[in-house]
Amino acid sequence: MAASVVPDETVGRLVTYVDYLERLLDQEVATVSSRELAAAAGVNAAQVRKDFSYLVPYRLGYFGTPGVGYEVRRLLYQLTRFLGVTHERRVVLVGYGSLGAALARYRGFAARNFNMVAVFDVDPAKIGKKVDGALVHGIDRLGEVLAQTGAEIAILATPASSAQSVAEKLAQAGIRAILNFAPVVLSLPRGVTVRQVDLSREMQLLAFRAMQDGESARAHHDSLPEEERQREP
Amino acid sequence: MAASVVPDETVGRLVTYVDYLERLLDQEVATVSSRELAAAAGVNAAQVRKDFSYLVPYRLGYFGTPGVGYEVRRLLYQLTRFLGVTHERRVVLVGYGSLGAALARYRGFAARNFNMVAVFDVDPAKIGKKVDGALVHGIDRLGEVLAQTGAEIAILATPASSAQSVAEKLAQAGIRAILNFAPVVLSLPRGVTVRQVDLSREMQLLAFRAMQDGESARAHHDSLPEEERQREP
Repeated sequence: MAASVVPDETVGRLVTYVDYLERLLDQEVATVSSRELAAAAGVNAAQVRKDFSYLVPYRLGYFGTPGVGYEVRRLLYQLTRFLGVTHERRVVLVGYGSLGAALARYRGFAARNFNMVAVFDVDPAKIGKKVDGALVHGIDRLGEVLAQTGAEIAILATPASSAQSVAEKLAQAGIRAILNFAPVVLSLPRGVTVRQVDLSREMQLLAFRAMQDGESARAHHDSLPEEERQREP
Repeated sequence: MAASVVPDETVGRLVTYVDYLERLLDQEVATVSSRELAAAAGVNAAQVRKDFSYLVPYRLGYFGTPGVGYEVRRLLYQLTRFLGVTHERRVVLVGYGSLGAALARYRGFAARNFNMVAVFDVDPAKIGKKVDGALVHGIDRLGEVLAQTGAEIAILATPASSAQSVAEKLAQAGIRAILNFAPVVLSLPRGVTVRQVDLSREMQLLAFRAMQDGESARAHHDSLPEEERQREP
């Protein structure tokens, strides 16, 4: 399948282009250049055209008009069809701790057509609470609530120790995609797509890159002749 | 610099190996095989050895003893030195909304030696509150508090509309690394390392991959002869 080779970075930028195009549409802007799209995503115009080339096998490739640019409305239609963001997707959240609570209230999901229809926890003190229209259920009601709501996507925000067993229950109950915030590599049957968001790992990666940048800046400074060093700000 | 080519995936796994080795050390396990390390990170043993090869230019390459494995304590020392996780790093959080509040309470940061020393917000109702030992300050006190605390890392959890201007203030006040949760590509001077965590984009990527997996499963099913199709579960 040609589809499976679309890099994560490209899919991420396609989402950025959609956001940007929606703003342009609101402002009644009719056309946009690849340079403008590039600036919005922090890449160059050649990368924008490369990103769009991934849509060609789906007969959604639209390369605009040279010298004029892309029609905002048409490009937006192509990208949203490709990404599958044209219809609502139902999501459940498992684990209503402090991170779970923040995720339940996070507005960015609804803005992308993800509708949180139910929350699950094991704590009897939390069960029965209402969170922005979604009810907190006991985890034992998973199968029943999933069947009622038709949710296929789950956000997993349990402690690390219970993440694997909860994920297995989710897979058995028909969940096809899991956004995993627990710092555990989940092992699940084929047919369940998992993405992991490990916040402390992101922090670790950030600190490591910053340390490297500091070292290479110092190495650059040390490699300069004395007079150059003094001239550096 | 050889350092700058270490892929994010490798750095991420090095962190996973550290977690796993710390658990082994707690359990007084003396040696570990690359196969065990591989299983903990969800890769194969060859990938583990490849990941370790990035440490060689730093004279931290340690390849264990064939047939015996790696000494847990020695490998842990090498990896933590490489990652720079041996000392405490001070962090500030900017934006004390629902996501910011969850991040302020997130225990995974402290577990990796990141110490949140201050929180900032613009809302007078939040200023002066205490969050797990860190005080919420007005954003106008940024320079002063950073000078007092010596923090070099910031978590940015403001609304998208103010993220760029807050990030510029952070850079001016001496912050060298920003973990950005606002859905905006920040444009900052060289010397400030930025990593972006866009939760709704992660969700979008997950849904897109799940859709692709569903399509390739259906395509696989459709390409089978009729009798094979019936045999599939």
